[in-house]
Amino acid sequence: MKVILTKNSEELAKVAVQNLLGVMYSKQDRVNLSITAGTSPVETYQLLVDEVKDKPYFDNVYYYNFDEIPYKNAKRDGTTLESLKEMFLTAANIKEKNIRVLNENNWENYDKQMSLEGGLDCIFLGVGTDGHYCGNIPGFTTIDDHVTRCSATKEYIKVLEEEDFMPKDEIPDYWITMGPRTVMNARKIIMIATGTHKAEIVNELLGGKFSEKIPASLLLLHPDFTLIIDEAAASKLSESYLETLR
Amino acid sequence: MKVILTKNSEELAKVAVQNLLGVMYSKQDRVNLSITAGTSPVETYQLLVDEVKDKPYFDNVYYYNFDEIPYKNAKRDGTTLESLKEMFLTAANIKEKNIRVLNENNWENYDKQMSLEGGLDCIFLGVGTDGHYCGNIPGFTTIDDHVTRCSATKEYIKVLEEEDFMPKDEIPDYWITMGPRTVMNARKIIMIATGTHKAEIVNELLGGKFSEKIPASLLLLHPDFTLIIDEAAASKLSESYLETLR
Amino acid sequence: MKVILTKNSEELAKVAVQNLLGVMYSKQDRVNLSITAGTSPVETYQLLVDEVKDKPYFDNVYYYNFDEIPYKNAKRDGTTLESLKEMFLTAANIKEKNIRVLNENNWENYDKQMSLEGGLDCIFLGVGTDGHYCGNIPGFTTIDDHVTRCSATKEYIKVLEEEDFMPKDEIPDYWITMGPRTVMNARKIIMIATGTHKAEIVNELLGGKFSEKIPASLLLLHPDFTLIIDEAAASKLSESYLETLR
Amino acid sequence: MKVILTKNSEELAKVAVQNLLGVMYSKQDRVNLSITAGTSPVETYQLLVDEVKDKPYFDNVYYYNFDEIPYKNAKRDGTTLESLKEMFLTAANIKEKNIRVLNENNWENYDKQMSLEGGLDCIFLGVGTDGHYCGNIPGFTTIDDHVTRCSATKEYIKVLEEEDFMPKDEIPDYWITMGPRTVMNARKIIMIATGTHKAEIVNELLGGKFSEKIPASLLLLHPDFTLIIDEAAASKLSESYLETLR
Repeated sequence: MKVILTKNSEELAKVAVQNLLGVMYSKQDRVNLSITAGTSPVETYQLLVDEVKDKPYFDNVYYYNFDEIPYKNAKRDGTTLESLKEMFLTAANIKEKNIRVLNENNWENYDKQMSLEGGLDCIFLGVGTDGHYCGNIPGFTTIDDHVTRCSATKEYIKVLEEEDFMPKDEIPDYWITMGPRTVMNARKIIMIATGTHKAEIVNELLGGKFSEKIPASLLLLHPDFTLIIDEAAASKLSESYLETLR
Repeated sequence: MKVILTKNSEELAKVAVQNLLGVMYSKQDRVNLSITAGTSPVETYQLLVDEVKDKPYFDNVYYYNFDEIPYKNAKRDGTTLESLKEMFLTAANIKEKNIRVLNENNWENYDKQMSLEGGLDCIFLGVGTDGHYCGNIPGFTTIDDHVTRCSATKEYIKVLEEEDFMPKDEIPDYWITMGPRTVMNARKIIMIATGTHKAEIVNELLGGKFSEKIPASLLLLHPDFTLIIDEAAASKLSESYLETLR
Repeated sequence: MKVILTKNSEELAKVAVQNLLGVMYSKQDRVNLSITAGTSPVETYQLLVDEVKDKPYFDNVYYYNFDEIPYKNAKRDGTTLESLKEMFLTAANIKEKNIRVLNENNWENYDKQMSLEGGLDCIFLGVGTDGHYCGNIPGFTTIDDHVTRCSATKEYIKVLEEEDFMPKDEIPDYWITMGPRTVMNARKIIMIATGTHKAEIVNELLGGKFSEKIPASLLLLHPDFTLIIDEAAASKLSESYLETLR
Repeated sequence: MKVILTKNSEELAKVAVQNLLGVMYSKQDRVNLSITAGTSPVETYQLLVDEVKDKPYFDNVYYYNFDEIPYKNAKRDGTTLESLKEMFLTAANIKEKNIRVLNENNWENYDKQMSLEGGLDCIFLGVGTDGHYCGNIPGFTTIDDHVTRCSATKEYIKVLEEEDFMPKDEIPDYWITMGPRTVMNARKIIMIATGTHKAEIVNELLGGKFSEKIPASLLLLHPDFTLIIDEAAASKLSESYLETLR
């Protein structure tokens, strides 16, 4: 495990981009990269777009989304892909052929397909305040899951309604996500956590113990796991731990 | 995860040797390989010795023991290293400089030292009927442990006494082992299980669920985990699971 | 460069199989392996077939031929693919989907296609008495060539006629081959040379100097090049060089 | 081979840093990186220092110089190490233990030592107008050389005198360099070329043919070779070639 402490969200974005570009430059043949939507990576993508847009030397990079909440009644991209396109894929002029879509129609065969395409070189993700990553909400997936379909409970649908990121009548009663096994199969995992609201979960991950109740605590066991945090997200770590990062 | 079903312990040994030689041939520069003592690998080493003995093209391979039960009052190799030498290292004329000893004197700095030496390319291990691997006996280490020193309970000392592999008055009240984090940091994990007495634990691993009570169930999450079993060890697996292996 | 000296063609075949299986076990996701036809590997394939045939754990391995001499007037497999199928692919029940054919119809886009499929993990080849490998006959390709189409001269067609491996009226006036650049792009190169008729070229490679006139001398520069020879093929090496191999 | 065209020397430095950081982030265990002195990388190091200085998460990176011109009568660092320290190693507070010195005293055993330390993950180098890289001046080393000691001719000493980078009476009659074999053994090669005075050699490399007279033309054969150039260095490339880079 490598933990990188950065000064603020701006430096975090810069270091995240360095890590992502490092993966993209790591092989001359096909590189398979799974990337996150959400709010954590916004600044990262703002920087990344400039480095990747219209660069023919990145034609070997293929992008995979790792979860999806489809719109209930609409035949269009789900919320994850929609967000990824807006923040990065479309903004960076990534070609359609380099985008590998995971959704409600192909999830059952997705692990096999990815393996046949060479497997994931890297997965880039954030962590929720509840310790979730991808769509691995505590209680909805188990450590034994590969790519899976999760049934939403009424409680969880309420959460989605409150988060207000999709119209109420479009909220589906399930979502798709790479489960713990699929994520752990990636050859490299890069996680970012920024802001004081992430300080508690960062402290649980780094200062605490492995627990099935905190899904992300599993990822620390991966042989090539990198966690990039900023001072705000590190603010609940012990002084002695912080010293090892400075 | 790759599961390899072999006909019997003889074929298992052959396939284990193929996997180990594969690691040894995988790089022209230094290769770091951690290997197991115990009874499971006896046949494997019988075959491996012939392939490795006095071969200058394996001078780049370094061997690491992953646990140790030192003799209580004696200044000599511990039981693991003693057994490894007898079964493989001495039998195959491995040079002293290629043997990296882990013991009661150097365990605290061992993770750091291994990382500086390039990290483990592979760890080769067995699994106990209780799901232990290396010295990770259920209840004695946690998932958060790196190389660690375990204090033996009276009950556990009794177990050691009954197993009769060291003189009673030489049994120490502790042992050293690579913990789950160290093992998961290896770039490849190869596990073998042979015989009907392993059928139950193999079924728990492959047919069951991740559980902290079965330490080895964690290893299935490693991105490059291979389990080699024989028909006897596979005898409690479901017919439908077995079909996927044939 | 790693040079492995074996006692005879039988041991050479065993060690070649160990190296090939090592590559096949090296990744859990797709493995791309390019393999040679010809007479050198006959014993190797005899052993390899048993290890690979009907083994579901090798479903991730894809096989690529690296050259082709098509039949002039016939719409069927070329001589290389025909030979590969006979010796190995059909004998080992390799599925059609795992066989990637290079031939006169697709060679122009082949480098690109291979790269998109992840690139070659390994190429397994022999060396001719004239230092050729794949279809890189001295004078017919240059070091700058990728996959290429070579025009046969009258002299070369005579050679093919004398070698008697295809009907005279079926000999085409060209062949297809991966050129030096494509071969060097593989992540690992394994070369075998067996028999006294190879002693001269082996000595030129190991005791001599790089020369564009000896195409195979380039391959020694690859960062992961392994040459497996037997005593007969090593019989012209100097005593002092041989000592380093024993 | 990957060719990256950048707008100017400033963008080239940024992209070179991205590539170097990519290597440094690529493994959690020891990373071995060989870096160039000279004028080409000045801007690169100016940027790199900020990213590396006092970052504990780069403690796993070891730096190797790849050539050395020792001062004739002085017992101090040679000109390469001196320059590397000034531009990067001292400026970035790299610890002594992370610096692996190659010089006139240890060169004979250096290939072996590096291999034992895991081999080079990457070598970062420039190219001279005569096609030299490291100390591989045309005519002074052959493709068959590993780390070697080159005897300077009178003519070459004159060149050194004219370049004026060391006092005349300190110019030695030899230098040390990693030869072509050692450089090709690195797992990744990153080369930079900036400025119009490099346009001719860049065109010979990319538009021309392999030639022993242009040492750097060999490096294009490496399976993971990246060439980063700016518009000035690309100014003699054909329009059709340039189109593939844009």
